[in-house]
Order: sequence, then C-alpha cells, then structure tokens
Amino acid sequence: MDIPDMVRNLAVEARAAARQVGNLSRAVKDRVILRVAELLEERRTAIQAENRRDLDAAVAQNYPAAFLDRLTLSDKTIGSMIKGLQEVAALPDPVGAVTGMWVRPNGLKVGRQRIPLGVIGFIYESRPNVTVDAAALCLKSGNAVILKGGKESIHSNMALTELMQEALSEAGAPQAAVQVIPSIAREATLELLKQDELVDLIIPRGGEGLIRFVAEHSRIPVLKHYKGVCHIFVDAGADLTMAETVCFNAKVQRPGVCNAMETMLVHEQAAAEFLPRMLARFRAAGVEIRGCPRTREIAPEVVPANEADWGFEFLDLILAVKVVPDLDAALDHIARYSSNHTEAIITRDYGRAQRFLKEVDSSVVLVNASTRFNDGGELGLGAEIGINTSKLHAFGPMGLEELTTTKFIVYGDGQIRT
Amino acid sequence: MDIPDMVRNLAVEARAAARQVGNLSRAVKDRVILRVAELLEERRTAIQAENRRDLDAAVAQNYPAAFLDRLTLSDKTIGSMIKGLQEVAALPDPVGAVTGMWVRPNGLKVGRQRIPLGVIGFIYESRPNVTVDAAALCLKSGNAVILKGGKESIHSNMALTELMQEALSEAGAPQAAVQVIPSIAREATLELLKQDELVDLIIPRGGEGLIRFVAEHSRIPVLKHYKGVCHIFVDAGADLTMAETVCFNAKVQRPGVCNAMETMLVHEQAAAEFLPRMLARFRAAGVEIRGCPRTREIAPEVVPANEADWGFEFLDLILAVKVVPDLDAALDHIARYSSNHTEAIITRDYGRAQRFLKEVDSSVVLVNASTRFNDGGELGLGAEIGINTSKLHAFGPMGLEELTTTKFIVYGDGQIRT
Repeated sequence: MDIPDMVRNLAVEARAAARQVGNLSRAVKDRVILRVAELLEERRTAIQAENRRDLDAAVAQNYPAAFLDRLTLSDKTIGSMIKGLQEVAALPDPVGAVTGMWVRPNGLKVGRQRIPLGVIGFIYESRPNVTVDAAALCLKSGNAVILKGGKESIHSNMALTELMQEALSEAGAPQAAVQVIPSIAREATLELLKQDELVDLIIPRGGEGLIRFVAEHSRIPVLKHYKGVCHIFVDAGADLTMAETVCFNAKVQRPGVCNAMETMLVHEQAAAEFLPRMLARFRAAGVEIRGCPRTREIAPEVVPANEADWGFEFLDLILAVKVVPDLDAALDHIARYSSNHTEAIITRDYGRAQRFLKEVDSSVVLVNASTRFNDGGELGLGAEIGINTSKLHAFGPMGLEELTTTKFIVYGDGQIRT
Repeated sequence: MDIPDMVRNLAVEARAAARQVGNLSRAVKDRVILRVAELLEERRTAIQAENRRDLDAAVAQNYPAAFLDRLTLSDKTIGSMIKGLQEVAALPDPVGAVTGMWVRPNGLKVGRQRIPLGVIGFIYESRPNVTVDAAALCLKSGNAVILKGGKESIHSNMALTELMQEALSEAGAPQAAVQVIPSIAREATLELLKQDELVDLIIPRGGEGLIRFVAEHSRIPVLKHYKGVCHIFVDAGADLTMAETVCFNAKVQRPGVCNAMETMLVHEQAAAEFLPRMLARFRAAGVEIRGCPRTREIAPEVVPANEADWGFEFLDLILAVKVVPDLDAALDHIARYSSNHTEAIITRDYGRAQRFLKEVDSSVVLVNASTRFNDGGELGLGAEIGINTSKLHAFGPMGLEELTTTKFIVYGDGQIRT
C-alpha cells in the first residue's frame, strides 16, 4: 500500500473508533491508562531495546547530545511516564459534564454538554515519552489520536503504540483509538494534514520550523504557538527584592523553554536602584544582557541592544533590557513585540496591576509571579498537551477540557417554533 | 492603490483599532450601537436611495425575486435592523467577565477572563441588513470587523458603513472598528483570506458554494457550516400527537433554512399508526415524501427514496422518510448521514432520550422539540452571528460570548517556579 492510502486508512479507522471512544465510561478509560503504566514497567527491557535501535542510528548520524537525551527512554524517563499516566487516570473525566443549563420562556431547558473533539492528529519531534503522554490525554478526553513523531524515534513509538493497543484491546476498547503512523516519510505528515473530513484538530509540538511547516500545509484547524517572547515589566515602586527573585527565576531557571523571560522592561523611576543589583545577579549566573541606551547609562558594561533583540526568542542565557518612561510605554512595547504567550508585571500599584491584566493581549498575564507558570500543570489544568497562542478554541495552555468542546442539549415537551 | 494593497491597509487599520475596541467600556459601545439605530431612522431616505442603485442594477441583470427581496432595505427591513440594534445594546457585555478563579497550592490565584478575539472578517451574500447586524455583534463583543458583502449590495453596504463610522467617531471610538471592503472584486476576498497575521477569524455566511470557496482559500481559521441535514427520530411509544406537531413544524414552518428537518426516521413499532396521519398532513401542506420500502408498504403512494435522498439538504417542501427497527439503527443512520447540525428525538422513554442526547454528535440535540430551535436567539444566546458545525471554538450557534475567548489572569505575591 502506498503512503497516502495507508494514512487515509488510518484516519478512516480513527474516525470509526472515535464514535466508540467518545462513549467509553471513565472506568474503562482509566483501566486502559493504568494498564499502559503496568505494561511499561513489565516490558521495560523490550521497550528500551527498541529505543536502543533508534539511539544507535541517531548516534551514528552524529546527533547532538541534547537531541539524544530527549530521544532516550531511560529508567528515569519511563518512571516519569508511568507517574504521568497515573496522574492522568486520577484526573476527572471531562466528557459528559453539563457546564450550564437554563430555561427559556417557552419551557425549553437548554444546556451545554462537554463532548470530545473526535480525531486528533498529534505531530511532534523525536521525544518518545510524549507518545504516551499525548495518547493518554487524548484517550481520557474521549478522542481518538493519530500520532506522528519524529523520524528518529520510529522504533520506540511503534513499540509504545503496540503496548497501548494491547491495553485498549484488553479493556474491550478499539485499538484504533491510538495509532502511530508507521512511516518516517514527510509525505505521511502531508497526507495526514489533508484529512479534513476525518480529522478534527492538529496539534503540533516542537520547534518553530516544525510548527510553521504544519500550519502552512494543514487543511485541518491547527492549535499551536510558534514561540514565546515573554516580557516582565518592573513597575515604579515595586518590591525590588520580589522583582529580582521573580525576574531571575523567569530568565535563569530554565532558559530554553517558551515561558522563560526574553525581555525585561523597567520603569525609569525603578531603574537606578533596581538595575545594578539585578544585572549583577544575572551576570553572576552567566546571563548576557543586551540593553537600551538608558540601561547602558546605568550599566555601561552592557552590550547595546539592536532592534532585532526586541521580540527575539533567545531560548538561552541572553536577556534584552529596556528602561521605559511609564506603564503606557511598557504596554506599547509589549503590544508591538510580544508573541501573545506570557507577560508579567511586578508592582504594588492596584490600578496599574489591573490595567496590565486587562490590556495585555497574551494567553497568560501575571501580577507578581514568574512567567514560568504558563503551564497546564502549574495553572491547575492537571496536565498539558500544548499551548495555543491563536485566539480560537483555547487561548493558552490546553489540558483535558481544552481537548473537548460542548454541544447544546435541549429538553422539551413538544415545543415548536412559531 | 491596487486591490491587495487596499485590503492589507484595511487589515492593518483593523488590527490597530482592535486594541482600542477591546478596551472600550460597555457604555461607549452601547452608545455607538444606539446611535447607529438613530441614524438609520434619520437617514432612511438617503440609505434607501443608495439601496435603490443596487436594486436597479440587480433588476437590470434579471436577478430572481427572492434575491431582490433579500437585497431590499424596505421600511420594514430597516425597522427590524433598528430593533436588532436596540436588542444588541441591551445584551450584557461579555468582555472582562471572569468565568472562574481558583487558588493553587502555592497561593497563586488563577482565573479565566473573557477577551475579544481581535479582528473578524465577515463574508456574506447580498443582504445589506446583515452588514449592520454583524457589525453590532462584533463591536459589542469588543472586536474590529472587516465586512465583505455580496457584490450586488456594494452601494448599500458602503452607505451603511459610513453611517456606522460616523457613530463611532461621535463616541470617540476608532472608525476602523467597522470597515467594509470597497470593492466588488473576488481578488479582494482572496486577499482578505491571506491576512493571517492581522485577522483572527473568518465567518462566512451564505450558500454552500460561498462557504466552500472561503474555506478552501483561507489561511485564517474559519467557523462555518456547509449545510444542515436535520433528522427527527420518532420513537416507539412516543406521543404521536406531539410527534406530528413537532415534525410538521420542523419541515413546513420555514423549509428553506438550515435547521429545517430533511429526513424523518420512524421506529417500526410506531410506523403503522403514525405514518398515515403524518403523511396525510404533509401531503395537505404540499410536502413531497420520498420513502424507504417499508414506508411505501404503509403508504404506497409515496415516491421511492434513492440513496442520494439520505443526507440530502432539500431546503424545500421535500422530506425523506425511513422506517428503522430500533434506536441503534436510527443512531447509525444519523452518524452516517447527518451534517452534525441538529437532530431531535420524540420519545417518552427516559433511557432512549438520554442515549440520543449522549450519542448524537450534532451541535444541537433535542428531545421532544423542533429542530427549528437551533438558533442563537431561540436557545437564549441573545443573538446569533452564525452556526458552526466544526468542533473547534464554538460548536453550534454563535452569539456574543462565542465572539470572545478567554485568557488566564494570575494574581501572585512573588511566586517563582522551583
């Protein structure tokens, strides 16, 4: 069978499975998820042998260490996967919840009931742990999923999917609820992105290049973020110790992720006192600072920032710093350069806190807290399948509820329209 | 200026206006909407003169009467537009509402706040009353809108938009909150559909051809429905008088709309008693029946249904009728042929009512009520800008809330991630 036919067949099977998966009870879904956790433990050696095949090939092709690290299903990684599955099983089932019901003047009772989206296509890089995480979230939310991981992880992904399908079968659930595309060809991804009659949603996860490729070729709606250019504004009169702690955390704790701070904006009334101590602390942690002219008046050793540094996602120990005259200037800078991902203000002022929360057009807006909290788990969604910075469907981190939609249910007693 | 440049400029202005529109108070938005209602009354003669130009051209080109009727801004139509504006002004403002807030173990207070989508592109046929309706809904929900109506209504639309921009100016709101594309070229629509960096959402309204054209060419997310193939299942033991009243309403009250019934499914235990009286009533109203073999055993005068009649949107006084052995067969038929728009069951049975509500994958599912209730106003959303049968963002009728999204707001006191 050629690749397009194979992918279409997978999608047809997923569509058929989706109707069954959407009606599975929570008990059955949780049984499958916990059984996958058990099987991961039981089959650890066999899974790691398949993972070894992927690793050997990647080593032979001289992939960098960080890549190999993400590709490896170490004992520790498998332990995290098992823990993740147990956590997803413990989460409430979003499907079937009625999120509101009201009565119309004619007596109709109208409600909104949570339902699965249907079939989700999940496209990601060579991180086989994500295969199991994403499948568990899709299953728990009542969706069928078609997985397309990075080509370097194909053996790992196929072994993991076989294991998940075994758990589905044992529980009497359709195996096609979780499928992996058994091909490393880009043609397979392109074919998946054409199945707009069979697949309801595409979620890509990975670098900006992968996500742009998916967005450009998809006929199916895509929930995604390209990048996170997160700003913190340190206001006049802010608690400068708090500002220092929060900004340090936002930049340094994990600089390579999308919710790390990339630009720090400082109110001119706070700059003279705040910048010297803050920049000294950043310097001690190896952070390169690129500053505006006013930053460099206070800290002449700082590298001058270019226009290209504003709105740039460094994903590294580099920070752009700008002194601004007031909140309006900070809001203007953010409106111009932010990626609508995450922004924070450090302030003691009630009015400016409220204005910042209202006027900043980002998926997560924080007062007096680190941008690093833009994460489904941290915000209390229980888990996260991705972050969406388009406004449609779910703006921000997406957990189980965001993998569902609602339909209207109506209880009548013979009403007609007049 | 060429057409692509002109459309891009419009989109740039809309984007800039969106930031201001999103922060307008309810008072200002309502003042604009009510002022538009006043101006429609004051400028009635001038508006109707512009509309006359469109009508004269359409008459000269021999458009059918129904088309001319939709194009006409009669006194009655203008009266409805004024009433619609007053109703939208009276609706609550969705923007700023916090739809939930919870406290994390570390003390972070996390909430979801309703915000506008941003810039909406609204593409529709030659119905100039829709120009004002759609603009009012977009403005009230804090969005900027770019309108592209049918080419035959260009003079009407430009006159109406000028009037709306006057009301915006008077209230100190940006004129670019409501813009019409001043071109009848299809190239203008195509250019609008490319502005994915500036426009957040496209809503097309009209016939299936228009909607498919938009969906195929858009790089921007599109909320839409192609058609409504609505089913009613009359269960065994149903109140047959109720079934007759509801089915008659769903087919006959307004057969040319998307929420009219197109196929009636009848439980075999109800068929012998129900079909003769129901079909007689339909016949008296001029409804052509196309029946399955078992329908024709009971009513031999009925035209045999072809395979193409199942799942067909007649939009006319034509109805496909099928006798089914049980609820499962009805659910299977609906899963295969429905357009995920609206389906209803007429039943007295608790369990089958619940199964139908749960298992039918349509945007509105009703028990003992007419499919004609799939409408934002009828379901209590206050108004409606369209119906979406894709699962993303808003499944079903879309009112003011569905023209918004939510962002996360977080109140902290110095929390960092560890």
